[in-house]
Amino acid sequence: MNRKYQILLPGWIITVNQAFEILQNTAIVIEQDRIIQLLPAEEIYSLSYYAEAEIFELATHVVMPGLVNAHTHASMSLFRGLGNDLPLMEWLNQHIWPAEGQWVNAQFIRDGLKLAAAEMIQSGTTCFNDMYFYPDVVAHEVQQTGIRAVVGLIVLDFPTVWARDSQEYISKAIAVFDEMKSLPLVTAALAPHAPYTVSDQPLKEVAMYSSELELPVHMHIHETAFEVAEAEKNSGMRPLQRLDQLNLLNPNLVAVHMTELNAFEIERVAEAGVNVVHCPESNLKLASGICPVADLQSNAVNVCLGTDGAASNNDLDMFGEMRTAALLAKGTSGDARACDSRQAIEMATINGAKALGLADETGSIEVSKQADIIALDMSSLNTQPLYDVASQVVYACNSRQVTHVWVAGECLYNDSQFTTIDKDQLCQLVNQWQAKIAPESIT
Amino acid sequence: MNRKYQILLPGWIITVNQAFEILQNTAIVIEQDRIIQLLPAEEIYSLSYYAEAEIFELATHVVMPGLVNAHTHASMSLFRGLGNDLPLMEWLNQHIWPAEGQWVNAQFIRDGLKLAAAEMIQSGTTCFNDMYFYPDVVAHEVQQTGIRAVVGLIVLDFPTVWARDSQEYISKAIAVFDEMKSLPLVTAALAPHAPYTVSDQPLKEVAMYSSELELPVHMHIHETAFEVAEAEKNSGMRPLQRLDQLNLLNPNLVAVHMTELNAFEIERVAEAGVNVVHCPESNLKLASGICPVADLQSNAVNVCLGTDGAASNNDLDMFGEMRTAALLAKGTSGDARACDSRQAIEMATINGAKALGLADETGSIEVSKQADIIALDMSSLNTQPLYDVASQVVYACNSRQVTHVWVAGECLYNDSQFTTIDKDQLCQLVNQWQAKIAPESIT
Repeated sequence: MNRKYQILLPGWIITVNQAFEILQNTAIVIEQDRIIQLLPAEEIYSLSYYAEAEIFELATHVVMPGLVNAHTHASMSLFRGLGNDLPLMEWLNQHIWPAEGQWVNAQFIRDGLKLAAAEMIQSGTTCFNDMYFYPDVVAHEVQQTGIRAVVGLIVLDFPTVWARDSQEYISKAIAVFDEMKSLPLVTAALAPHAPYTVSDQPLKEVAMYSSELELPVHMHIHETAFEVAEAEKNSGMRPLQRLDQLNLLNPNLVAVHMTELNAFEIERVAEAGVNVVHCPESNLKLASGICPVADLQSNAVNVCLGTDGAASNNDLDMFGEMRTAALLAKGTSGDARACDSRQAIEMATINGAKALGLADETGSIEVSKQADIIALDMSSLNTQPLYDVASQVVYACNSRQVTHVWVAGECLYNDSQFTTIDKDQLCQLVNQWQAKIAPESIT
Repeated sequence: MNRKYQILLPGWIITVNQAFEILQNTAIVIEQDRIIQLLPAEEIYSLSYYAEAEIFELATHVVMPGLVNAHTHASMSLFRGLGNDLPLMEWLNQHIWPAEGQWVNAQFIRDGLKLAAAEMIQSGTTCFNDMYFYPDVVAHEVQQTGIRAVVGLIVLDFPTVWARDSQEYISKAIAVFDEMKSLPLVTAALAPHAPYTVSDQPLKEVAMYSSELELPVHMHIHETAFEVAEAEKNSGMRPLQRLDQLNLLNPNLVAVHMTELNAFEIERVAEAGVNVVHCPESNLKLASGICPVADLQSNAVNVCLGTDGAASNNDLDMFGEMRTAALLAKGTSGDARACDSRQAIEMATINGAKALGLADETGSIEVSKQADIIALDMSSLNTQPLYDVASQVVYACNSRQVTHVWVAGECLYNDSQFTTIDKDQLCQLVNQWQAKIAPESIT
């Protein structure tokens, strides 16, 4: 059997293990798709397979787990920059939903996914949690590119290009779930869009399937004060209360946004083990509200981080997101100690992995985990001098300092070059979409 | 006489003129240090000096005015990452002030300035407003590097390495001001540090010199609620009220931070023509408070943008700052229309130039202004597709997309290479400082 060994020799390793150890003079040994050893750098020469291993000298680099983007709509990248400086409902009603009605089809999803995956790889994301149409197409494209993803099996009440009614969404979800089992880089989540777009009956089925199949439930919840107020007006209940009655508040729930939370809800979410995905840039951009991250963290809630779709962010850069999250938590809580650099890095890595049921596979650099790893060149002027590696990664690092990205041991980005993506071809594809969607923008 | 012509042929020009015109198929002609023409691209061949001009083909690029960083302490870059996740006064008392006492001297200032200038040029800043010690050294180093700066002539009550008491600060300020007149890239500002560190008598002299010499007054004001509360407790007056009595509230004032402002103060600041410098990332990081940018803008106050020093940010990246400013204004005002992409770009360019008394020279691309210009390559995946150029610059662009930077017609960064800075030599210098300041961080 043809074994494949890779040995990384970084300046620093931010392991993101339980103790958040930062190691120096330590080599990472990868065999096929897994990390098999962390050992003193000088000992690599004694490894029996040393001669056949591929060695990566990364002396000026920080190596850390690949970032986990816990909420996005990847293919929406093709709508990046359509409708700006508008509040959520106006942006959706007047720009995004009409554009989706007109343009979204399987080819759009495939090409949008390619663009998003390339942007994510380039900026250090190795795993993303997606929610959009054509999850079957997303899953195959993910596997093709070599990135890791949790593909959301979308559920809605109303008809779209993907399904007619909740029953069809659910039956297609189960069919796609079965189909995806053969794709090693892909796992599934049930993705009921939001409390205001999915009624009780399909949500009960989602709760049942989630429990039976041990699947995460990926859902927008309490995104705006308006959403909560409308629900209270129409049903006398806040959305979280309704989801609680439907048995959805449990460790499978990946609750996205959560900008409107009262003290009782924070306690209930903590007690139920619900995972919260903070999307600071999208929430700010749409003026949706601000997730109370410091309060959630002090209640030991698992808070992770997402970019949301590029249409409301407008990039998929998790380094930017991590920094915004750390800064915003301090600024809004009035406590400069809130969301420190360690917490920010954990939010962007292991916490996301936990929320997605992937904590045994990704989110940290530990022996036996998948080799989902990134390297950042810290010799860049903006990260010099270097007194505190974790702080530099959060507060000073630019995502362009990512030079290497491995997913499941495959080096997808090597010395700032893609290995599975043809960038020029991709740009041509994107240009064709741009010419169709907004011909006036092409000169 | 040896004339020097340069012709830029960009895909798009964000002029930041009064009408915020975005031009296509337009060439920019630079003669020596100035923009002498904007003309249809196809007409360049008929220019008499076309054959001797240097041509820059920038078809995939946005060209815009260089960014104006309206508040920084450039040389503090050597302290980047010392003391993180701490509130302002603890960070100052326990980390920054002791480090300054131990390390700041003329050589520190020179080397720190080199690092900061390089980082700023690389990320598209062409002019910065500085406040720190040894302004004479700063001024000479600025001229050497070729960037533009407004050098703050610092005034304090207490002794530092630069002066013993306010009288010596002021006499040195006037001496350095005279000395700097021969440096074309440098202008001066009076820089009384803050209301709580400068007493009435020196502030009266600052007001007098500012009015006589027409100099900006660069000052930290209302940085935290604590500062305002202490002043009220000790003097019965809020700092802005005291500065008003000292005749400092006028269009020369460049008031930095301003996180604590009541409705009366916003009105007074607007009426007096005071310029406000918003430093969102530093204010968030130190949990100092949040400047009410949307309210100030709706009162027609000139709001500009600064990074603050790298020690509290922790980079000097004005693209990141612009984006954070736009997002934060929306999030905190609850209005997604607040601080739109046009306003964000103006804050980072022309508004800074206005505040610093340089609006006739820099901050926009207009005929007869200094050629302070940057080019951004928009073919990057994170800025594709491209429906709205201004929105893409604010919400999706990474500062590493800056490929060219001109200051006063001098191309300081050409196809992502420095022309006046030796990066390797600079990194060695920085490394030596790191080894002195924190020997344990060097491995």
